[in-house]
Amino acid sequence: MTVYFIGAGIGGIDYLTVKGHRLITQAQVILYDALVDSTILKIAPEKCLKISVGKRGGKVSTPQTSINQLLVHYAQQYNIVIRLKSGDPAIFGRINPELAVLKTVNTSVELVPGISSVLAAPLLAGIPLTEKENSQNFTVISGHNPDSIDWATLSKVDTLIILMGARNLDKICQFLIKNGRSKNFPIAIIKNAGRENQQVWYGTLNNIMAQTANIFLSPCVIVIGNICNNF
Amino acid sequence: MTVYFIGAGIGGIDYLTVKGHRLITQAQVILYDALVDSTILKIAPEKCLKISVGKRGGKVSTPQTSINQLLVHYAQQYNIVIRLKSGDPAIFGRINPELAVLKTVNTSVELVPGISSVLAAPLLAGIPLTEKENSQNFTVISGHNPDSIDWATLSKVDTLIILMGARNLDKICQFLIKNGRSKNFPIAIIKNAGRENQQVWYGTLNNIMAQTANIFLSPCVIVIGNICNNF
Repeated sequence: MTVYFIGAGIGGIDYLTVKGHRLITQAQVILYDALVDSTILKIAPEKCLKISVGKRGGKVSTPQTSINQLLVHYAQQYNIVIRLKSGDPAIFGRINPELAVLKTVNTSVELVPGISSVLAAPLLAGIPLTEKENSQNFTVISGHNPDSIDWATLSKVDTLIILMGARNLDKICQFLIKNGRSKNFPIAIIKNAGRENQQVWYGTLNNIMAQTANIFLSPCVIVIGNICNNF
Repeated sequence: MTVYFIGAGIGGIDYLTVKGHRLITQAQVILYDALVDSTILKIAPEKCLKISVGKRGGKVSTPQTSINQLLVHYAQQYNIVIRLKSGDPAIFGRINPELAVLKTVNTSVELVPGISSVLAAPLLAGIPLTEKENSQNFTVISGHNPDSIDWATLSKVDTLIILMGARNLDKICQFLIKNGRSKNFPIAIIKNAGRENQQVWYGTLNNIMAQTANIFLSPCVIVIGNICNNF
């Protein structure tokens, strides 16, 4: 009786790990998030219970307490239960409450890393995240609540990578400009990284809103830094 | 004629991506780095040329110009040439000169992300990199040249992840303390993440040197932040 927290990676089966792939083909129960690609669920055994517990864009379709209860319930009945998260389970995956509840019932847990869009989206867009001249460090944040962010500090790091920032793009750009970043500082937005419909927009803090006007950007990765400037 | 820059991930085959795995089984030439696990090379076809171009701990065993020449040479003779990097190719992988030289000879290039120890080492050590209370952001740096780092800024981010920092651990801790971090600020060191001989040390900026005295820590990932405190 083990619950495997597996990162489904980005896009389809190609970006699963070999270990994640093997475990999914042996799964008895899979509790999966909204962004997990449907092709990945198809490699699970036919008998496997597949339960969507997706959260998306701030909307909670399954309350966390219910997810916790489902995990405990299935972990006590089955040997291979998989909690399938998009990307990597530990990157804004909010797995801590789930790990905590499984600990209270002494369930064995194993964490399996996944390809995170944090690193893979820039790579697949051709933007090298680390670079001697322009990007000796990069910082990862969630953009869902820009008012709570220490912009004075984060406006000084070489490269910023923002997940869940589409709805607050304007605010994020304004905060960075107010904290000393040039209006012409480069930004890139990568939507649907690793999928066939991947799209990339380039711009500056000052014009990216105009460049992406009327476009629904989510799910996307926002990259802000001079490394976005070579295009 | 394509050169695939593939992230070999951490440890063995389990942490390869499905796509990376498939391409390696079809490879005609593989140019690989020092930290790539030997089990991964074994899945390549028997006829495949496997060439070590490893760099390790600052020592360059194969000069960059030679690697560039080898890449161009083989790309012009074979259809599936793989440049195999440990972790993810874009994270301190210094691939830019290689991409640049392949561009000059019009070689088609494809980038395949890999599991990076940046994210996977903390995960496999049980340290969740993002957490509501203690880690709303994390910053990734290389520790090979701590004198060139803006510690005033980086001492203020929630969590720091440092690759290639083993030799400069003392200096890194001292810089952080000088820039306002408490001597008791938590730190963790993860050696050989994802391998059978994975080891983890916990401590504070003030005592981690004593705790790891006489231990050869490389290759390791250093995590500095309150998220290392739950142990």
